[in-house]
Amino acid sequence: MVPHLVSKWPAWLCRWRAACTPGASLQQRTWLGVSRRPAWGSPWGVVGTSPLVRRGSSSTSSRAPEVVLTHERYPVQRLPFSVVSEEDRAAFERMIPGRVIVDPEELEASNVDWLRSVRGCGKVLLRPRTSEEVSHILRHCHERNLAVSTQGGNTGLVGGSVPVFDEIILSTALMNQVISFHDMSGTLVCQAGCVLEELSRHVEERGFIMPLDLGAKGSCHIGGNLATNAGGLRFLRYGSLRGTVLGLEAVLADGTVLNCLMSLRKDNTGYDLKQLFIGSEGTLGVITAVSILCPPKPRAVNVAFLGCPGFAEVLQTFRACRGMLGEILSAFEFMDAACMQLVGSHLRLASPVQESPFYVLVETSGSKAEHDAEKLSSFLEQLLGSGLVTDGTLATDQRKIKALWALRERIAEALSRDGYVYKYDISLPVERLYDLVPDLRARLGPRAKHVVGYGHLGDGNLHLNVTAEAFSAALLGELEPYVYAWTAGQQGSVSAEHGVGFKKRDVLGYSKPPEALRLMQQLKTLLDPKGILNPYKTLPTRA
Amino acid sequence: MVPHLVSKWPAWLCRWRAACTPGASLQQRTWLGVSRRPAWGSPWGVVGTSPLVRRGSSSTSSRAPEVVLTHERYPVQRLPFSVVSEEDRAAFERMIPGRVIVDPEELEASNVDWLRSVRGCGKVLLRPRTSEEVSHILRHCHERNLAVSTQGGNTGLVGGSVPVFDEIILSTALMNQVISFHDMSGTLVCQAGCVLEELSRHVEERGFIMPLDLGAKGSCHIGGNLATNAGGLRFLRYGSLRGTVLGLEAVLADGTVLNCLMSLRKDNTGYDLKQLFIGSEGTLGVITAVSILCPPKPRAVNVAFLGCPGFAEVLQTFRACRGMLGEILSAFEFMDAACMQLVGSHLRLASPVQESPFYVLVETSGSKAEHDAEKLSSFLEQLLGSGLVTDGTLATDQRKIKALWALRERIAEALSRDGYVYKYDISLPVERLYDLVPDLRARLGPRAKHVVGYGHLGDGNLHLNVTAEAFSAALLGELEPYVYAWTAGQQGSVSAEHGVGFKKRDVLGYSKPPEALRLMQQLKTLLDPKGILNPYKTLPTRA
Repeated sequence: MVPHLVSKWPAWLCRWRAACTPGASLQQRTWLGVSRRPAWGSPWGVVGTSPLVRRGSSSTSSRAPEVVLTHERYPVQRLPFSVVSEEDRAAFERMIPGRVIVDPEELEASNVDWLRSVRGCGKVLLRPRTSEEVSHILRHCHERNLAVSTQGGNTGLVGGSVPVFDEIILSTALMNQVISFHDMSGTLVCQAGCVLEELSRHVEERGFIMPLDLGAKGSCHIGGNLATNAGGLRFLRYGSLRGTVLGLEAVLADGTVLNCLMSLRKDNTGYDLKQLFIGSEGTLGVITAVSILCPPKPRAVNVAFLGCPGFAEVLQTFRACRGMLGEILSAFEFMDAACMQLVGSHLRLASPVQESPFYVLVETSGSKAEHDAEKLSSFLEQLLGSGLVTDGTLATDQRKIKALWALRERIAEALSRDGYVYKYDISLPVERLYDLVPDLRARLGPRAKHVVGYGHLGDGNLHLNVTAEAFSAALLGELEPYVYAWTAGQQGSVSAEHGVGFKKRDVLGYSKPPEALRLMQQLKTLLDPKGILNPYKTLPTRA
Repeated sequence: MVPHLVSKWPAWLCRWRAACTPGASLQQRTWLGVSRRPAWGSPWGVVGTSPLVRRGSSSTSSRAPEVVLTHERYPVQRLPFSVVSEEDRAAFERMIPGRVIVDPEELEASNVDWLRSVRGCGKVLLRPRTSEEVSHILRHCHERNLAVSTQGGNTGLVGGSVPVFDEIILSTALMNQVISFHDMSGTLVCQAGCVLEELSRHVEERGFIMPLDLGAKGSCHIGGNLATNAGGLRFLRYGSLRGTVLGLEAVLADGTVLNCLMSLRKDNTGYDLKQLFIGSEGTLGVITAVSILCPPKPRAVNVAFLGCPGFAEVLQTFRACRGMLGEILSAFEFMDAACMQLVGSHLRLASPVQESPFYVLVETSGSKAEHDAEKLSSFLEQLLGSGLVTDGTLATDQRKIKALWALRERIAEALSRDGYVYKYDISLPVERLYDLVPDLRARLGPRAKHVVGYGHLGDGNLHLNVTAEAFSAALLGELEPYVYAWTAGQQGSVSAEHGVGFKKRDVLGYSKPPEALRLMQQLKTLLDPKGILNPYKTLPTRA
């Protein structure tokens, strides 16, 4: 059962409740004040002012308890790569003077993932500034048979961005220059290490937005977004990176620079090689620069946050939403009551609406505020009348919108404070999206602290999370392969947007037939014959 | 100079002229009548009632003069594939009884492309119904070293869909079943041989539309659309097939069936293998089934057709359009005065607006007619006042919209009646999109009958066409490599959406660096080691 939350929600959010104001018109509702702002928590007890906590921050991880080494927790054997020698370090130092990090303290944050669930023991961190430097580094590593793990903002959720053993960590952090922005077409060209939030600011000043947005935007790198084919919060409206990325530059395992950095919307000159690198998690090449199409910045953005009495009502709300909001619908997210409880107890965020079994966040983005408001009003009026939602609140200004989004975006952070998190990120037919959550609650009983479900309903993407006091092989055994088999039974995907990384590589068979896995392996062998790029990731363990 | 056209445009199109009605409000304009419909011409003199002539029709090609054999016109040598024997034919007959075509008359239409510019001498046409049949056929061809050219609707424009020599023609025409449609998500799953227009009808009856639309929709197959990564008329709004295709099934050169037919919006389980087959023109595998995401059918569609005094005004109109129409803008097409002259003289279509140096077609698609009309009205009012357009007409009903679209969609057909057509389909930075057209007119002088420019301005895609009485190697020498070098100088693409096929394979180097061409060749060797799939296409001739 979900305990009652003391409502700490600031009064400045426009709010209505179906039961209280059955006949009231939305236009009559007004903002009640704009003075107060909630005190946001940040992880591991630090109270800050930023509504979104940066993932991958090293200052926080050093205070947390030690993370078990990956090769101690999981059955994985080091492959026969060379070990970095003094001569190798000297060679790197000549290539990128002053940017070869070997201090163990400094390396700590790059060896542990954001979830603090895997830990490598990389001894060298390299920080190149240019593609040419990456090329020199990889040529050397290829010749010397040294394994390399490329790292962007280290915000990944499947253990893909940290070494498993002693792989060299190749950081894109200093490759952070915007190369160009074309304000007729909205095409941004930049280096791979640019932070998503900084790019957002850059293009917003010019009247555009980035086609992707995600909770980790304050830390994640655009190169990492491509390497993991990040989905995120704008996917429903602007689609996949496979459509919005116009070009990229990648350095291959042997140091070859492959320049596919086109800035054209259409280019059918042969095979679309950039697609090989999008979503391949650094196993086929290192992405060093990106060309991406930015949509015009919407003139009006509105967010409604609604309480729904059941999942069937969430689905009906989605259907109504698509019909009535049409082209201005830009997000349709959902979370269950257990999620709201966790953001309340761990982050001190209170629900802006009455306690409900489910909550829905609907965002609209359009070019004319009056039209959007009118569409949204009709939609909300209909919902109130229909009983599909029991309570709701509407925000139209930036700060209030951010506050509502934080409820959804900070669930991952709240979960990480709840204990050890077993994370599943699956795609399912939308009408079956929530079935697995109550099923697992019944299956696990008190062995789980919490079993929660939330995600991008509009994309058929469920984030299913189970928390427990600590990692337990027995609980893992209850969860896996059960969750994957269940997903496969619905023709779902065992990784919707988080990718494969280290943690999911041996469950690909639930979503891909043997012929596809064989072809993946052949592509890996073609592009990286020595297997030095991000080993132990993405591809199933060889038999 | 563009001669005057006698205006034959039906009175039922709402029309205004900036010079005549400077102060009139758009809301005051009314339809003047709806009784008459223009008599559409179809190619080679047949008058029909369909507004869009089917490409790839065999009945028309047989009446036209003989097309020169490809290997007689172009310097190309047959590769050492086997020749189809009596035993091979018998084997095929056992696999697909009654669907092995060897009659030369029946084969004629499949050996010649729609433009009547290339001609192969395939002796066998196979019409499988299932992926399993395709698998059996390819396994046999692989073992026997027989070359295969896969053919959909044969509407391609680069000689990619017909044999160059005696390749077996593998037709997808009988693989034309819809497998499923999911009306919550809008996901369509179908066989590769479904005709695009029939799929459009299928999903429109269910409240959705196909994410792509093109002039050849009455004949082209969805599998062919994927194989060529077709762009078309809805690209501006719904983006690339690389984003909207959710899955596909392909049969590899050795007969292996690769099932990547997922129906999920998000799936990050390893490398996205389907992307290898999208745009690879049948050279890496035969696409046999498709899963594609269909957007909801817009409730209101409007088309404005405008005359602009210069290309600078076309660009400014585009900029204004993006700002004021925002999310409802679904197409922004342009054509020059020479295009209008050709559709007038060859197809008897008259301009609906005053003669202008340029014409623009703006389409909006939205969920609420009043809102869209209001946005469009403000936009058009502003244009009229600004002098960016000199004349315009607006259509809101299906038939009138089709009539306006026909002016743009039938340019290719009008060109094909004008003589031999040298076709270029290039991507350029939008502000340089038209520069090459006047440049070429000056360069070619009277050696060209017409030099015209039109295309998808919103996507930076120019269709540059030159007509002459007949093919001439000398004129070709004036055009190539000049056009390609000019395009490369602007960092453009020498093939925006038509692909490479047979005709463009040796100009890829203008848009792709040697490292990319080498990787393309490596992928080809990996997936089709004997090179039996659509040989002489897509990849540059080996040195």
